[in-house]
Amino acid sequence: MLKKILNINGLTRTLIVDPEASLASVLREQLLLTGCKVGCGQGQCGSCSIILDGKVVRSCIVKMNKVPDDAQIVTIEGLGTPENLHPLQVAWMAYGCAQCGFCSPGFIMSAKGLLDANPSPTREEVRDWFQKNRNACRCTGYKPLVDAVMAAAKVIRGELRKEDLLFKPVGNKIYGTTYHRPSALRKVTGTWDFGADIALQMPPGALRLALVQAEVSHANIKGIDTAEAEKMPGVFKVVTHKDVQGKNRISGLITFPTNKGDGWDRPILCDEKVYQFGDAIAIVCADTEEHAKAAAKKVKVDLEILPAYMSAPAAMADDAIEIHPGTPNVYYEQGIVKGEDTKPIMSNADVVTVEVDTYCSRQPHLTIEPDCGNAYIDEEGRLTIHSKSIGIHLHHAMIVAGIGVEPEKLRLVQNPAGGTFGYKFSPTMEALLGVACLATGRPVSLNYSMYQHITYTGKRSPGFVKCKLAADKSGKLLAMESDWTIDHGPYSEFGDLLTLRQAQFIGAGYDIPSIRGKGRTVCTNHAWGSAFRAYGSPQSFLASEIAMDELAAKLGMDPLELRFKNVYRPGATTPTQQVPEVFCLEEMINKLRPLWQEAKQRCRELSTADKKRGVGLSLGIYGCGLDGPDGSVAYVELTKDGVIVASSWEDHGQGADLASLTHAHENLRPLGITPEQIKLLMNDTAITPASGPAGGSRSNVMTGNAIRVACEMLVNAMRKPDGGFRTYDEMVAENLPLRYEGNWAASMCTPCDPVTAKGDPFAVYMYELFMPEVEVDMKTGKAKVVKFTTIADIGTITNKATVDGQIYGGLAQGIGLALTEDFEDLRKHTSLAACGLPYIQDIPDDLEVIYNITPRPLGPSGAAGVGEAPLTAPHPAILNAIYNACGVRLYAVPALPDKIKAGLAGKK
Amino acid sequence: MLKKILNINGLTRTLIVDPEASLASVLREQLLLTGCKVGCGQGQCGSCSIILDGKVVRSCIVKMNKVPDDAQIVTIEGLGTPENLHPLQVAWMAYGCAQCGFCSPGFIMSAKGLLDANPSPTREEVRDWFQKNRNACRCTGYKPLVDAVMAAAKVIRGELRKEDLLFKPVGNKIYGTTYHRPSALRKVTGTWDFGADIALQMPPGALRLALVQAEVSHANIKGIDTAEAEKMPGVFKVVTHKDVQGKNRISGLITFPTNKGDGWDRPILCDEKVYQFGDAIAIVCADTEEHAKAAAKKVKVDLEILPAYMSAPAAMADDAIEIHPGTPNVYYEQGIVKGEDTKPIMSNADVVTVEVDTYCSRQPHLTIEPDCGNAYIDEEGRLTIHSKSIGIHLHHAMIVAGIGVEPEKLRLVQNPAGGTFGYKFSPTMEALLGVACLATGRPVSLNYSMYQHITYTGKRSPGFVKCKLAADKSGKLLAMESDWTIDHGPYSEFGDLLTLRQAQFIGAGYDIPSIRGKGRTVCTNHAWGSAFRAYGSPQSFLASEIAMDELAAKLGMDPLELRFKNVYRPGATTPTQQVPEVFCLEEMINKLRPLWQEAKQRCRELSTADKKRGVGLSLGIYGCGLDGPDGSVAYVELTKDGVIVASSWEDHGQGADLASLTHAHENLRPLGITPEQIKLLMNDTAITPASGPAGGSRSNVMTGNAIRVACEMLVNAMRKPDGGFRTYDEMVAENLPLRYEGNWAASMCTPCDPVTAKGDPFAVYMYELFMPEVEVDMKTGKAKVVKFTTIADIGTITNKATVDGQIYGGLAQGIGLALTEDFEDLRKHTSLAACGLPYIQDIPDDLEVIYNITPRPLGPSGAAGVGEAPLTAPHPAILNAIYNACGVRLYAVPALPDKIKAGLAGKK
Repeated sequence: MLKKILNINGLTRTLIVDPEASLASVLREQLLLTGCKVGCGQGQCGSCSIILDGKVVRSCIVKMNKVPDDAQIVTIEGLGTPENLHPLQVAWMAYGCAQCGFCSPGFIMSAKGLLDANPSPTREEVRDWFQKNRNACRCTGYKPLVDAVMAAAKVIRGELRKEDLLFKPVGNKIYGTTYHRPSALRKVTGTWDFGADIALQMPPGALRLALVQAEVSHANIKGIDTAEAEKMPGVFKVVTHKDVQGKNRISGLITFPTNKGDGWDRPILCDEKVYQFGDAIAIVCADTEEHAKAAAKKVKVDLEILPAYMSAPAAMADDAIEIHPGTPNVYYEQGIVKGEDTKPIMSNADVVTVEVDTYCSRQPHLTIEPDCGNAYIDEEGRLTIHSKSIGIHLHHAMIVAGIGVEPEKLRLVQNPAGGTFGYKFSPTMEALLGVACLATGRPVSLNYSMYQHITYTGKRSPGFVKCKLAADKSGKLLAMESDWTIDHGPYSEFGDLLTLRQAQFIGAGYDIPSIRGKGRTVCTNHAWGSAFRAYGSPQSFLASEIAMDELAAKLGMDPLELRFKNVYRPGATTPTQQVPEVFCLEEMINKLRPLWQEAKQRCRELSTADKKRGVGLSLGIYGCGLDGPDGSVAYVELTKDGVIVASSWEDHGQGADLASLTHAHENLRPLGITPEQIKLLMNDTAITPASGPAGGSRSNVMTGNAIRVACEMLVNAMRKPDGGFRTYDEMVAENLPLRYEGNWAASMCTPCDPVTAKGDPFAVYMYELFMPEVEVDMKTGKAKVVKFTTIADIGTITNKATVDGQIYGGLAQGIGLALTEDFEDLRKHTSLAACGLPYIQDIPDDLEVIYNITPRPLGPSGAAGVGEAPLTAPHPAILNAIYNACGVRLYAVPALPDKIKAGLAGKK
Repeated sequence: MLKKILNINGLTRTLIVDPEASLASVLREQLLLTGCKVGCGQGQCGSCSIILDGKVVRSCIVKMNKVPDDAQIVTIEGLGTPENLHPLQVAWMAYGCAQCGFCSPGFIMSAKGLLDANPSPTREEVRDWFQKNRNACRCTGYKPLVDAVMAAAKVIRGELRKEDLLFKPVGNKIYGTTYHRPSALRKVTGTWDFGADIALQMPPGALRLALVQAEVSHANIKGIDTAEAEKMPGVFKVVTHKDVQGKNRISGLITFPTNKGDGWDRPILCDEKVYQFGDAIAIVCADTEEHAKAAAKKVKVDLEILPAYMSAPAAMADDAIEIHPGTPNVYYEQGIVKGEDTKPIMSNADVVTVEVDTYCSRQPHLTIEPDCGNAYIDEEGRLTIHSKSIGIHLHHAMIVAGIGVEPEKLRLVQNPAGGTFGYKFSPTMEALLGVACLATGRPVSLNYSMYQHITYTGKRSPGFVKCKLAADKSGKLLAMESDWTIDHGPYSEFGDLLTLRQAQFIGAGYDIPSIRGKGRTVCTNHAWGSAFRAYGSPQSFLASEIAMDELAAKLGMDPLELRFKNVYRPGATTPTQQVPEVFCLEEMINKLRPLWQEAKQRCRELSTADKKRGVGLSLGIYGCGLDGPDGSVAYVELTKDGVIVASSWEDHGQGADLASLTHAHENLRPLGITPEQIKLLMNDTAITPASGPAGGSRSNVMTGNAIRVACEMLVNAMRKPDGGFRTYDEMVAENLPLRYEGNWAASMCTPCDPVTAKGDPFAVYMYELFMPEVEVDMKTGKAKVVKFTTIADIGTITNKATVDGQIYGGLAQGIGLALTEDFEDLRKHTSLAACGLPYIQDIPDDLEVIYNITPRPLGPSGAAGVGEAPLTAPHPAILNAIYNACGVRLYAVPALPDKIKAGLAGKK
């Protein structure tokens, strides 16, 4: 240990530190300055950025023995107080920069370092700074962050008043404005406590967990020996499947009847088999994380290695054994049948056809916060699990039998979550935490390293999708044939649903009278398939939106005009034969048309021999809801001070807090209630109702409506005969109920048929057009998106800063999906950088979002959702733009430089 | 566990807490808001005061299940930042309120609660508030705290600017001003990390220790069974004497040659015997304090109970066995012989004699911070022990052999110390920490509860002192006879020295030509005798200063005039036949005389039948230094930025940091160095020189001189032939040394003879006159000091706020010693309140300190010390005042109401 005297946030502190410990760990674990967030732990994400002797450093890679004596350290905790925030903090709130909030303190500290050195940076200087300092954000698409720095700089230079940064409501109206999130203050002060922060705030005696994980992808387990590990320093207990009280399986729950599996295929702790790399075999419970990890290395696992099927084709091979014995590796099939038989149409000589065969990759979510959670027995004897769950009631149902407690003795709470983008639609570590807590009787915490997080959480399931389109010579679509295979990894959770999604979205957006197709879900030994933003649609649109471009080419039509000709108009139905709830695509294309012409001209003008520019197009659609009937519950309660709004609208950065507040406020406005009088109660199965998971852009419609209904009930109850409203005291005096539960269900929806896919799965859809401009380096093959224009119709806008942020962020993930991101090679794709996380210079500053506002009849105040829309189809537009730029046609993402380079070489 | 949502310092936090845990422990241990200090843990001291929903609460007694949901909590961390302090924080710095600083955050938060409710309080309302909220301070005598609140209130009311609170140097001069302490900022922000705070900031894996302690006072140990304890949850190891590598004894070190013991009488961990209640028998090392304590209860100790000798007379009885077999219970004797034989003088019929027999109690130190410490192996393999030690090099020598490491492998560091008042002149837990660290190889921390702190740290040794004075009819003192017995508890550490002190101070201040006396040190089974402010003198002066009053009465003289007649004037010598270094007492009494007359009249006027007032007098003297030759070492080093000043001048609230800075600054002023350019390096045996312990008011003289010498050497080295000074770069260019070591020794001093006490033990003395005014409630017998006037001559004043604070605080402890404080009954005297800690209403707001400034020839810039002076003799003055008020003469302290009441009854 080293005695170290440091000046931290203006005060000299004497610390006793391990010379090998990182500065970040000392700040976090020894000083509880948890505003310093640790994401990657490798200097790749900048979340731990602090200022050391005037320089921005990533504290996770600074060892204590390299920190000079008397060093001056400034962390976010030393920047501003709630009453006196730094201009950067206010700007971060004002520009919606703190979505999940995990990267915010690091960005703010980094920006402070910049503004200290250069109070008048240009936008490009800001971007260069964040690039140089490796500040990574997965939510915002970076643009709002640059906006905020520019605004804060103005305040610092005295050109703007700090007080004028934040939007202030006029006439008590916040709906549709840029009102800031309730959580923003904590996010910008570093006190929005994520799971790893909560772990450090647990009561004394809480245990730290470390997993013993499989290092192979498929094996039989012959024995687990924990004896040596049990004797290691600090170890309290080593938990294996033998300690699990329940059936030790996590249920996939909503498995369709025609699914050949039963959904009980995922062990909590492996007992008989290892199904994928990283599978949890044992949990070491110890006093410190270091001790737990050291002991985990001493657990001996005796394995019989089996052949590993690392892709769908491998698992579908004739000689492949059943990964789950008794269940075929192809365990679910989904068809689509619409209109007339397509074969005769396709073979008609007057008809123009194209056929594409695409591959959408195993996109990693790349949240900056690694997965983490905590568990304890609460005051009522309930096993209480805090995690990043975005479906606390859903997860309750999925894990309760496996853990083996009575349902009422299991409580799930969502921690502030540093991004999930859907991966937390799956239970990740909830059951592990629960099992360890029950086995030890102690509070427990588990934090994954970024390596664990990347290698052992679910991924977007790769899709092998074929799409054949037929049109008449005028470009009118006549028929579509499709075939798709989903590599879903070893666990069946929602794999059938995902397979159905292809039927719903291949060719969506266009009036295609006849469709035939078939898809299948395949069990493999690669990463299990989890939800991911725009779930299922990127695989679909990659095929149909490239096909549309190829069809236009074959027809000699402008790809915009081909699309314009075929988009939904009254009379058209979706691939599942549903009547769209609004017809907005025509108007959207009309809005885009002049920009498209300009873009084409610009690309021509700016192309050089070395760097060619191209522009691409695509259309994306997503439904707001779980498949078929969906609904939500929320309640409001009048109190002396205002109104409580309670729901389980989990937040993963998308803004559940602000949306809850906004819907409640809008519907309570007749009462004159201000936003400050609304108290949110959120995300605890013990106290908030089952509002359904926060995924698939369903919440703004489902829970938004539930909140609306509850508010309307309260307002009606308070209304006096004379039109005025009763006060709280009057309500009490008249013995009127104070609490109102709002239920809302999309009862007009129906599930889709497994053979024909016929059904009305969604009550509200989102529509978006994508128009990226790409520059291809003809030497290296590297493609770069230099501008991105998009036209979105997401109904009315609940909060402008939030929807902007969602769209920017979705586009950024689309750029990643298109160009860099992948999780395929278990040895290589193990860090944020290696997985292709886009940094700021990978995302254009020129992101233009145009809203086409078509109020949705069934949306609360006319709103749809937003989050999935921008990630439905940006990547085919980018591939189309690459083709437009340099003539290289790729059918698979990511479009890595080598592939483009090979394409360019092939053309020579 | 309980999930609790609280708003803490303006930010909502979700916490997982034990419902039975205290709010203080959650704030401290789970949120590391260690500005909330825990002193007593029983709601008696107010150190943990925070604001909960607008009310001041002592958070140590608020259980989490009583904290309302959504409670608004404000702690000192939420009050102000270093750049933007709250006016109370600035006022606390400006008025020297943060001495040890332990109570400061609690007081400040309490005061905030008051000013929030009442922005214009009177001084009495401030006092009532602190009394009601049980805010206890052991350092300041409370007056400066009230001053600070009144000033902060002015700032809040806009009548004073915050910027004008703090003294700012004029002409780069801080010597003699009220310049604030370098540590003040951290103290008022709650970030001056005490040992228990450092424990919470230790690296993960640090172990918490709990002691297995003797619950009897004297026993033979027949066996220690740790088997059951070793198996308890969280236990890493149970350490007993068998694990101690060294000789398992703490050495008393400076034992005089005529001492019959060898100084090796105190075990680190008991092996053969228990010598006193609380003796440490085993150390449980566990992951949490709770686990360690639970396991400690499971250690079985097999004891053979022996008779316990709980006072000197009991241990001196003929049938008493030797507590340390082989060493008589009376193990040291000290005589005094001055001038002619006293017997003939005493028996002369013309001579007036009085004789008193007094008892000075086992005064407890009652620091608000319980003892605590930490240990670890440093980067060079040194066992490093952090504690409240006020003698780090001394303690190194006392414990190194007992622990059993090479001297260079033992490092001692002083933690910020929440008051010691001398108890930390003893090693308390240093060796226990060291032994546990070596036995486990892990960082360790030990925090005593207030109960442990009170029952198992050293106390002031009770003194049974007889004093007989003889004077001629004019009042001229002719002779003194004295006899004294010191009950020193079981451990000999400095017991001989303490016994010598009586010879030095009984009758000190007066020119007594002939003295004969004898004293002895007695080993008992009560609390071991430790250093305590004014060490040795309160026992002495209690006897001689009551005797002086009785003599005056017998002579019919005014007690002031009797003293005036006899004080040291040129030609006089001290009891040890030393020539005083200055003669200031005459002038001091002249200054006091008019105030004495006024006080007498005031007391007469204000006396009623129910409440009688009286005024008393006494004189106190103390020497600045260890006995005999003493000295110190410090060094200064020129750096690019300024000057480093390094010493081991331990701080326990007295202001070592400020005094080091002030002496250095004063002597570096020729260079134009500002206070901000001086960096202090303090209190780490690995890096700071052996400056001697910080006790006996020696440091300001010894280390002050060492710093002066070092600074003079540097200034001389930098001086150019033309009278200007070389810069740092010039020094380097000329290859001149940058570091200068200052040595200073009081080489003119000599040790005292064990038979005659003849010697020149101190180079510099402090002189003080005490004049309390007391009100006695004639019904209850309760005496209350209502005003206290004192005249002090401590040479020049190094820092005005500091010396004021030292004198106020010393007087307050004197009032406690006189009226309430005791540690005698092991069952009863176990809390701050039960031990008689004075609260604010026990200490008069009317404390008048008058300085008589006689520069000391040997003091740095003419200064003596200060800390001991005010506690030398305030208590006999109070007993004299009680006598003056109501005619009851007490010879023992504390003068509890029952004793006065009994005296009043006896007079009827």
